[in-house]
Amino acid sequence: MEKMVAERVQVEARARIADRFTQVRRRTLALCEPLSAEDMMVQSCPEASPAKWHLAHTAWFFESFVLREFLSGYRLFNPDFSWLFNSYYESFSDFPEKRLRSSFSRPALDEVLRYREHVDAGIERLLESDPDPEALKRIELGANHEEQHQELLLTDILSAFFTNPLRPTYREQGNEAVRGREGRDQGTKGLRNQGNRAVAIEFQDYEGGLREVGHVGNGFCFDNELPRHRVWLEPYALAHRLVTCGEYAAFVADGGYRRGDLWLSAGWDAVKSHGWRAPLYWTEEDGANENGNWTIFTLRGPRRLEEIADVPVSQVSFYEADAYARWAGYRLPTEFEWEAAAEGRLIEGNLLDSELLAPCRVTDLNPNQDGAKHCYGDCWQWTSSAYLGYPGFRPLEGALGEYNGKFMSGQMVLRGGSCVTPQAHIRSSYRNFFPAETRWQFSGIRLARVTC
Amino acid sequence: MEKMVAERVQVEARARIADRFTQVRRRTLALCEPLSAEDMMVQSCPEASPAKWHLAHTAWFFESFVLREFLSGYRLFNPDFSWLFNSYYESFSDFPEKRLRSSFSRPALDEVLRYREHVDAGIERLLESDPDPEALKRIELGANHEEQHQELLLTDILSAFFTNPLRPTYREQGNEAVRGREGRDQGTKGLRNQGNRAVAIEFQDYEGGLREVGHVGNGFCFDNELPRHRVWLEPYALAHRLVTCGEYAAFVADGGYRRGDLWLSAGWDAVKSHGWRAPLYWTEEDGANENGNWTIFTLRGPRRLEEIADVPVSQVSFYEADAYARWAGYRLPTEFEWEAAAEGRLIEGNLLDSELLAPCRVTDLNPNQDGAKHCYGDCWQWTSSAYLGYPGFRPLEGALGEYNGKFMSGQMVLRGGSCVTPQAHIRSSYRNFFPAETRWQFSGIRLARVTC
Amino acid sequence: MEKMVAERVQVEARARIADRFTQVRRRTLALCEPLSAEDMMVQSCPEASPAKWHLAHTAWFFESFVLREFLSGYRLFNPDFSWLFNSYYESFSDFPEKRLRSSFSRPALDEVLRYREHVDAGIERLLESDPDPEALKRIELGANHEEQHQELLLTDILSAFFTNPLRPTYREQGNEAVRGREGRDQGTKGLRNQGNRAVAIEFQDYEGGLREVGHVGNGFCFDNELPRHRVWLEPYALAHRLVTCGEYAAFVADGGYRRGDLWLSAGWDAVKSHGWRAPLYWTEEDGANENGNWTIFTLRGPRRLEEIADVPVSQVSFYEADAYARWAGYRLPTEFEWEAAAEGRLIEGNLLDSELLAPCRVTDLNPNQDGAKHCYGDCWQWTSSAYLGYPGFRPLEGALGEYNGKFMSGQMVLRGGSCVTPQAHIRSSYRNFFPAETRWQFSGIRLARVTC
Amino acid sequence: MEKMVAERVQVEARARIADRFTQVRRRTLALCEPLSAEDMMVQSCPEASPAKWHLAHTAWFFESFVLREFLSGYRLFNPDFSWLFNSYYESFSDFPEKRLRSSFSRPALDEVLRYREHVDAGIERLLESDPDPEALKRIELGANHEEQHQELLLTDILSAFFTNPLRPTYREQGNEAVRGREGRDQGTKGLRNQGNRAVAIEFQDYEGGLREVGHVGNGFCFDNELPRHRVWLEPYALAHRLVTCGEYAAFVADGGYRRGDLWLSAGWDAVKSHGWRAPLYWTEEDGANENGNWTIFTLRGPRRLEEIADVPVSQVSFYEADAYARWAGYRLPTEFEWEAAAEGRLIEGNLLDSELLAPCRVTDLNPNQDGAKHCYGDCWQWTSSAYLGYPGFRPLEGALGEYNGKFMSGQMVLRGGSCVTPQAHIRSSYRNFFPAETRWQFSGIRLARVTC
Repeated sequence: MEKMVAERVQVEARARIADRFTQVRRRTLALCEPLSAEDMMVQSCPEASPAKWHLAHTAWFFESFVLREFLSGYRLFNPDFSWLFNSYYESFSDFPEKRLRSSFSRPALDEVLRYREHVDAGIERLLESDPDPEALKRIELGANHEEQHQELLLTDILSAFFTNPLRPTYREQGNEAVRGREGRDQGTKGLRNQGNRAVAIEFQDYEGGLREVGHVGNGFCFDNELPRHRVWLEPYALAHRLVTCGEYAAFVADGGYRRGDLWLSAGWDAVKSHGWRAPLYWTEEDGANENGNWTIFTLRGPRRLEEIADVPVSQVSFYEADAYARWAGYRLPTEFEWEAAAEGRLIEGNLLDSELLAPCRVTDLNPNQDGAKHCYGDCWQWTSSAYLGYPGFRPLEGALGEYNGKFMSGQMVLRGGSCVTPQAHIRSSYRNFFPAETRWQFSGIRLARVTC
Repeated sequence: MEKMVAERVQVEARARIADRFTQVRRRTLALCEPLSAEDMMVQSCPEASPAKWHLAHTAWFFESFVLREFLSGYRLFNPDFSWLFNSYYESFSDFPEKRLRSSFSRPALDEVLRYREHVDAGIERLLESDPDPEALKRIELGANHEEQHQELLLTDILSAFFTNPLRPTYREQGNEAVRGREGRDQGTKGLRNQGNRAVAIEFQDYEGGLREVGHVGNGFCFDNELPRHRVWLEPYALAHRLVTCGEYAAFVADGGYRRGDLWLSAGWDAVKSHGWRAPLYWTEEDGANENGNWTIFTLRGPRRLEEIADVPVSQVSFYEADAYARWAGYRLPTEFEWEAAAEGRLIEGNLLDSELLAPCRVTDLNPNQDGAKHCYGDCWQWTSSAYLGYPGFRPLEGALGEYNGKFMSGQMVLRGGSCVTPQAHIRSSYRNFFPAETRWQFSGIRLARVTC
Repeated sequence: MEKMVAERVQVEARARIADRFTQVRRRTLALCEPLSAEDMMVQSCPEASPAKWHLAHTAWFFESFVLREFLSGYRLFNPDFSWLFNSYYESFSDFPEKRLRSSFSRPALDEVLRYREHVDAGIERLLESDPDPEALKRIELGANHEEQHQELLLTDILSAFFTNPLRPTYREQGNEAVRGREGRDQGTKGLRNQGNRAVAIEFQDYEGGLREVGHVGNGFCFDNELPRHRVWLEPYALAHRLVTCGEYAAFVADGGYRRGDLWLSAGWDAVKSHGWRAPLYWTEEDGANENGNWTIFTLRGPRRLEEIADVPVSQVSFYEADAYARWAGYRLPTEFEWEAAAEGRLIEGNLLDSELLAPCRVTDLNPNQDGAKHCYGDCWQWTSSAYLGYPGFRPLEGALGEYNGKFMSGQMVLRGGSCVTPQAHIRSSYRNFFPAETRWQFSGIRLARVTC
Repeated sequence: MEKMVAERVQVEARARIADRFTQVRRRTLALCEPLSAEDMMVQSCPEASPAKWHLAHTAWFFESFVLREFLSGYRLFNPDFSWLFNSYYESFSDFPEKRLRSSFSRPALDEVLRYREHVDAGIERLLESDPDPEALKRIELGANHEEQHQELLLTDILSAFFTNPLRPTYREQGNEAVRGREGRDQGTKGLRNQGNRAVAIEFQDYEGGLREVGHVGNGFCFDNELPRHRVWLEPYALAHRLVTCGEYAAFVADGGYRRGDLWLSAGWDAVKSHGWRAPLYWTEEDGANENGNWTIFTLRGPRRLEEIADVPVSQVSFYEADAYARWAGYRLPTEFEWEAAAEGRLIEGNLLDSELLAPCRVTDLNPNQDGAKHCYGDCWQWTSSAYLGYPGFRPLEGALGEYNGKFMSGQMVLRGGSCVTPQAHIRSSYRNFFPAETRWQFSGIRLARVTC
């Protein structure tokens, strides 16, 4: 009887995971539809990878951590791919330097697509058998892994198209799917020019106290979300929406990038050594002064600042987020303040599923709702927390232990997902992380302050 | 009556601070005794400064933050020194790039010594008047500031003498003052060869729970030690002594620097890009294999590894400390685990006052004592905590606000003081901080582990 | 009458140039046949450009310097291309940084091919009219320019395929056209393994004296080959063939890359900082010692050193050529010694027209011939002459003046053409030039010595 | 009889060389008189060395190449100095990286001075014996070597004092020795403000033809001046004086540093990457525009441009000299044009012996003289010739062969000596050489043009 229950659970898990696998794999390909094989070769900055590499590496992940171990009789699609598309798993195999990925003209895109089909067929075969529960876990991990690369693929393509002096557009406005969900039917309205009418920022108070943070429940999570543990929080308040381009432009116009006293020391060094004057994709017309004339490059093409003044600012580094907060008289939240506020809320917002592919105007906040709507989506939110292991953190066994743990040094935590994060991927305990100088992500600013 | 009490308190404070000022200033000069004017010109690495610069900058601190504001009629010794010896206070004045300090052949050492005398006379005059309580606070801050530079002066001279191909010795063995305090009467015994007889590492358990951390009481502390606040700690255990050179040599011999799986990703990058093979001042005879033949350069001259195998390893980066701990099956403590264990203990150990100027052998631990003796001194202890502001952290007002706050990014906390930290300077809430790659400090390893 | 002669000359020139234009343009496309659009995206080192960029830039050259000025009513294919595909002509327009060329996924290859067709049609239209003689000169210049890029396209693809960890092959052996010309009918014999049977190097004496150098006659030449002028040469001797891979391997095995005394100071710095141990595309099997086991990567795929020991060594820097010569007891020739020896000889040798695409074995030297056969082809020959302007040198007028003149600093002259240089392109007065560290070219070594 | 003659020659040579040795050694110390031991520690740029190092290295040269080999019973002053003060002679011994020289606080200056005395005593003892003729040659080489370091010592101190934010002065105006030689009795007049009254530049024609260049006669020369050999020169003309600061300022004001078309490609890269806007020691007051307000730092302290407008411009790179010449409608001379014009002229001019220590005003040219007076001195004159070996060049035997030969790559020749070159050191065949980017030398501009 118990065994039957266990079997039914396993059957259901298998069905659910098979479904998830299929959808994730399909979406990855859909994201590549606007791209040519040539587009998928570009690696425009050291952080980025070519889109073709993302296609291949996500297949490699399933092949290396699922099929090799769990599908008996599995034939490697191409033994060279085992090391060629390894990203950074030292204990799995050697791998090429990251910068070489732009030289992978071979294998051709066609061959990479066949690689994906070969792997898909393998996973399907495995799912049709009675797979080891560990295999199922690995497939689920692989689906989540691929969703991370979906997001990276889009951020990398934005960088690639910004780097191309012709500045091509990934997707024109207006052809995104318009979904029926309330608040989502506005099409690209989020990107249209309706003047700067962002709702004023309000702060919502939280009590703090001894709270539990970290993942809870049976659902999927990464190893870095565990163990769930207690933290003590002083009372605090969080802004009910993100900082907008228009607000950020006021900081720029006020000499924000010329006043060392507003910045962390390492941030000020970054400003000076890189010559930062605005967020990453903001460009100025010749002869413009700092008061304006900014154009902002997006996956939907260039936008005038005036058009999107009430849209959350994106592509800022932690240093810029921190300096903005200091200038505005606030601070950034810790990751635990964020998580304690988000836990239990519905996961909705401008995520990848909205297909807007850019942050959308904050005027659309329903005044009858609390801040929940803007809890998730639009931009990852820099926190003031360094990315470290939780008390008692244990990485996964084997090479997969390198997935998250070895990066717990020199990076800051971001929370909440962005307009290119799949909705199924995000949750309140999810920890994204990047070095403080990183700017090519959809990363923005939520303000916090102490309450007393 | 109340006024009289307040006055007496003020008089006592003034006397205490005057005494502290005098002693600190005197010690700085004493530390320079073995050095020539030429020695005091050397800036051997980007982190370091010339000793003469330390002499001048510490005078500048009193002149700029005390005398200018609080001593009426004070005449600047040399107006150019106002900006010349500013280290990094953007809101105070411009300042020369740090790397230029090695070009300061003028002012000559003599002039810098006269600068110090001029400033000393000013502070004495101020103390003889009825100074503003804020002035007293600033003098106390200046004394603590100067103690930090005493430590830096010694670490920088060690680097300077290691860089000089002739490898001169700062102070020969045997001429340090031998104090009467128990356990300290062994002279340089700590550095003599008595075989590797380090006591085995034992772990002491701590309960954890909701603890208060941060400075408490009326004594001096830096702004970064405040506010005192609550943290939740899971139960943990700390090693009762630091890791020794001999133990670290076993890690080296086991291929510690060749196994990427032992390292954080950024640490492994550092190993490869810098070619690290051992701690900073370990050098190998030609033809030696990794199993040994190491010589370790110290302020007392070169030492064979065999001689000091039971002395705490020093001059390791956070990455090395972390990798060692992983190899050994443990982890590093958080800064709060450390502080909760240290709070309330006597401050004793091998600090600058012992004048050993190098870590000393752990065999000298008194078996009847608890781990307290090795709580402080020998080496700063890398923690797994990133250096961030405490909840509600507020930097000092004005330019002094740049003292600590702007460095709260990209650095790790170290605790406990070292063999070149003045005893009066250290305390359980004291937070030192350096980037994870830093190796030129007296920085070592205390292991920790979870208990259950 | 005179006018009629002039007209006939003009008509003949027009026909000759039209023919040359057509053939050059066609060959460029033929060279791309083995390449995919993805291959044509790769930019594998700072010196190289993507093949697609070469296709576009050579069209740009005709559009910018011929059609815009001389074809009335010419419509630019795409106004953006005017600056997008400018390489380095500051006085013509702005241009993108060279490293950005790898981001040019748009325009797509198809569009670039249409650009070429558009330009071809324009040139044909111009040639069918009665074009200005200057226009004809520019078309001829453009054809020569394109031939330089044919060579670069092949060197860049070799670099791209070497950089790709899979090491794809540009063209398999055996499918090159086998031409009927004597000495050329051996097919790929030059690359087949026949043991190391290179003919011994012989030195041929030259008298020297007052000689004229620089281009003479009515044929095409670049501005840097003029003015023809006198130089005094001491008696000298030149090797009758180039140094082979086998001979160079002996230098490597003799510790050539470990002995600083064999190298120019800047060369020795390059050896140490880049870790050079052999020519650019030589790789060693794991565990091999320096005595061998080298594999050499070519456009025909990898070759074992043993197979091609009697083939001229290629892809060496000037520093390596110079060090080899010193080790061998000789020196490199000056560019004028080379030119005086080559002037008047037939232009034949292993050039692009042989379609071998790699240096070929020197055993094929006809013992009845003098050294003439190996005067041209196989590898560019480093000379000991710095690339400087000739006495009275005048660059072309306008932006075309930047073609050669502004590079007359910090580079060395190479002579003689290589296995990827079109035969119609090379001549005795031709001056190629690269910085002394350059290794990605088909550059080799001809020895010289003083005679007395 | 013949033997007696030979003996007398040897005796005279010995006396002459002993005298020269004594004077050179004495002058080196005299140049250090204005310097403290701290000044002599500064190494302000990668090209420079500390003055103390120059003192020690020049002693090392005599010890290593004379005393070790030729003085029986010579005892090394300190065996460690054998490698410590080796500059770059790979075949002699290992040597420290150049950048480490700033860490040589030990040996102290006193010890270095004793080293010099020890070496002096050795050389005197050797000269009093009947030394091998090769020993005499080496002593003469050592004296010439030391004169090169006298010049470097002064250029390096100028750099050191410019780098020090306090900008100390090496020697105040007015205390230089005023010599009786005609045209030299103006004291520091050359540096006083008398308005811009530079004589207009005139060009002097030279016939060219087949000329001999290279050193001739029995006097001392370096290996790189040999063999004397023939070169063919086309007719040419040389300016009769150097370009002045005032003339150069006009180039600056005309946008010389903003117009890429005036520069060699590598020069333009240098302008952009280093942010060059004027010669090395020109600084601008805040808010000044390019039309002026320049201050020029010299060994005699800062000078306003107006004061020294008619003084030759100095501290320019080859790229700047070349760009200036192009802007002015001229070119730089080749080294052989210069030498053919200078050969046979008296060696006089503003050399180190004038003790002005800076270029002097060109108004002092005697109108009755030809250009000879300004043939030598003031500034080294960049030529358009790359520094290469002469036909049949043979470096000295042994380690001394590294003196000049290994630098024959990537550098340009300068001719004529400067205001810090000893008069006894310079001659018409003398070849100085530096990389084209070098700016810290007293290097200036003589214009040339073709004549027809």
